[in-house]
Amino acid sequence: MNKNLKKKFSKVDIVFMDIDGVMTDGRVVYIGGSSPRIWYVRDRMAVKILKGINTVKVIWITGREGKDLEKVAEELSVDKYYSDINDKLKIVKENLDEFNIEKSRAMYIGDDLIDLKCMSYTGISCCPSDAVDEVKKQADFISKYPGGRGAVRQIIEKILICKGLWKDVVKRYKLV
Amino acid sequence: MNKNLKKKFSKVDIVFMDIDGVMTDGRVVYIGGSSPRIWYVRDRMAVKILKGINTVKVIWITGREGKDLEKVAEELSVDKYYSDINDKLKIVKENLDEFNIEKSRAMYIGDDLIDLKCMSYTGISCCPSDAVDEVKKQADFISKYPGGRGAVRQIIEKILICKGLWKDVVKRYKLV
Amino acid sequence: MNKNLKKKFSKVDIVFMDIDGVMTDGRVVYIGGSSPRIWYVRDRMAVKILKGINTVKVIWITGREGKDLEKVAEELSVDKYYSDINDKLKIVKENLDEFNIEKSRAMYIGDDLIDLKCMSYTGISCCPSDAVDEVKKQADFISKYPGGRGAVRQIIEKILICKGLWKDVVKRYKLV
Amino acid sequence: MNKNLKKKFSKVDIVFMDIDGVMTDGRVVYIGGSSPRIWYVRDRMAVKILKGINTVKVIWITGREGKDLEKVAEELSVDKYYSDINDKLKIVKENLDEFNIEKSRAMYIGDDLIDLKCMSYTGISCCPSDAVDEVKKQADFISKYPGGRGAVRQIIEKILICKGLWKDVVKRYKLV
Repeated sequence: MNKNLKKKFSKVDIVFMDIDGVMTDGRVVYIGGSSPRIWYVRDRMAVKILKGINTVKVIWITGREGKDLEKVAEELSVDKYYSDINDKLKIVKENLDEFNIEKSRAMYIGDDLIDLKCMSYTGISCCPSDAVDEVKKQADFISKYPGGRGAVRQIIEKILICKGLWKDVVKRYKLV
Repeated sequence: MNKNLKKKFSKVDIVFMDIDGVMTDGRVVYIGGSSPRIWYVRDRMAVKILKGINTVKVIWITGREGKDLEKVAEELSVDKYYSDINDKLKIVKENLDEFNIEKSRAMYIGDDLIDLKCMSYTGISCCPSDAVDEVKKQADFISKYPGGRGAVRQIIEKILICKGLWKDVVKRYKLV
Repeated sequence: MNKNLKKKFSKVDIVFMDIDGVMTDGRVVYIGGSSPRIWYVRDRMAVKILKGINTVKVIWITGREGKDLEKVAEELSVDKYYSDINDKLKIVKENLDEFNIEKSRAMYIGDDLIDLKCMSYTGISCCPSDAVDEVKKQADFISKYPGGRGAVRQIIEKILICKGLWKDVVKRYKLV
Repeated sequence: MNKNLKKKFSKVDIVFMDIDGVMTDGRVVYIGGSSPRIWYVRDRMAVKILKGINTVKVIWITGREGKDLEKVAEELSVDKYYSDINDKLKIVKENLDEFNIEKSRAMYIGDDLIDLKCMSYTGISCCPSDAVDEVKKQADFISKYPGGRGAVRQIIEKILICKGLWKDVVKRYKLV
C-alpha cells in the first residue's frame, strides 16, 4: 500500500457501506414475506471492533428491504442504517452534513454500478474482490476477499492499522 | 466472441430463463410448506438493469414451484413468470406469438436436459459454466460464471454490449 | 472405469442413499423446531430422471430427522424414505427382502462412518468426492463431485450409461 | 505432527469450542426474531463420535444468541453450552473447576480475537484454516479445513488418534 493510500485510510472518520454483496455474500432467501440475507460472523465482528473504539461512524445503506438490518445493526452498534434507498448519494451527503464531516474523511464500500456515484464522491472508496469490473476500476482499494467473506474485515483492519490503533485493539483481546 | 455470435446477441428482443441453476445457484431449502431458492444480488441487478432500458422482454420459466418468484419478479420488473411448467417449449412459443417476436430474436438460458428443446428452438442459447455437459455442447455461449453467481450478469452485459447500449447504462450510474 | 466396475454399475436394480452429505451438501439450518437441509437442483433432477425410466428403485435413509424429506421424495417419485434411523443396514436388508432383489444388484451411496456397513454389504458402493477417508477407501467408485453438488448426478448418469440407457434418456429431452 | 503436540492432543480431557466460524462456517440468517446458523453434518458427526466414547467432555461457548444450540447440543450429547457470553475465559475456568480438570488437559478451539485469551489459557489450542491471522499465530494446531467444513472433524479425529482410540472407533462402524 503506497503512502497516499495509507494517508487516505488513516483519515477516515465515517464509513458508508452497501449491504448486499459487501457486508453479505450477496445471497438472499425469500421466506414468509421477507428476504433475509446471509451474514458472516467475522465481517460482523470487524464492524463491532471498529465501533468498539468509538471514533469512526458506520452507516449502512441498501437499495433493498431491511427487515433483518435492524437487529444486526443494533447488535453491532452501527450508527445508522437505511433501507429501500434509490439515491444513496443523497444519504451520504445528508450524513456528512449532519455529523459535520468533510467528504475527504469519508469512505464508501460498494460492489455494483449503483455504488459508483458514492464511490467517486467520498475521499476513499473500497470494494470486495468480487465486485463488478466498473467498481473495481474505480476503487482506491480492492480487498483480496469477496463480499461477506472477509472483505469488510480486511478493510476495517486497514483503517485501524493506518490509524495506528490495530495493535492496541488486538492487545485488548489478549491475556495479560 | 466471433462476429456471428455478436450479431445473435445484438438481435435479442426477448430472454427466456430457467430459474433453478440459472438465476440461482440451484440450492433450495424446504421450509414451512414452501421451498425458497437462494438468490444472488448481482444477477438480480443485471435483470433490473436490462428491464431498466425497457426494450428487451424477460420471461422466467421454472419446472418447480414459484412461491418466491412473485416477489422477486415484481421487484425486478420481469415481464412474466411461469412455475410448475412441464412443457417449457410451449410457453416459449406462446410468448413469441403473443409479443409477435421471431424466434431468431429470442434467447433461452438453461442449465439442464429439460432446457435442451427450448435452447435449440430459440435463435441463441446460453448457459452457466456449471451446466450439464449436454447443455454446454448445445449452447451458443457458455458463461465463465456458474448459475446464480454471475452467469446471468455476464450474459445480460453481453446483450447490452452487442446492442451498443452498455456504455450508456454505465454512464447513467456515474457521477456527472 | 474398468470392465468389472462397469458390470457392477450395469447390474444395479436398487439404489440406497444417505441424505446429508450425499443428496445434500451437508449443510443444515435449525428453524422453527425443524432442521431443513439445503438441496441442489441438478442432483434432484438426476433422481427424477432415474425414476422416470422406472426400472431402478431409489430408497433414502437418514440418521437425522426427515421433515423435509416427505415433500422432496414425493416430487422426485422416490420409492421410500426412512428418517431417524440408527441401523441403516437393517433397512437395506428389509428392502432387499421385500423387493426380492439380490444384494449384488444393490448400490449404496454414503459419505461417513455410519455408512460403512451398508457399503460393504451391497454389491457396489459409491461416495462423493468429499466423503471421509475411511469411506473413500471402501467405495468402488468415488465421484469427482462433492455431496449435494453433482455427486449423485454423476453416479446416476454412470448407472444409466452402463445400462446402455443414457443416450435414449437424453434423446427424449431433445427437439425432434 | 511433532511429539510434543501429539502428547498435548493425547492428554485432552475437555474440549471448549467457539460456535460461529468453528462448528459452523460463520454464516448466519436472521429469520423470525432468531438468527440460526448453518451447520455441517460431518462436523456434527465428529462431536457425536467423540461423545460416544464418553471420556472427553465437550463445552460450547458463543458470544451470540443460542436458540438453535439447545436442539443441536442435545442431539450430539454436548455436555454444556453457553450463549450470549462476553467473558469466555470465565466460563472456561468455572468448568475446569467444576469438573476438576487441570488446564493442561483442556483444549480450546477458536477463530477470532475474542478467543485469544482462552487459547493461551488452555493447555492446547486449535483453529480452522480460515481463522484470523492473530489466532493462527497463537494456535498449537491449524486445521487444514475451514470452520464448519471439516475443521472440528479433523481436530477431533486427531484427539482420538493421539489417544490411540481412533482405530477402535472406526472398527465399531465396520461390518464384522
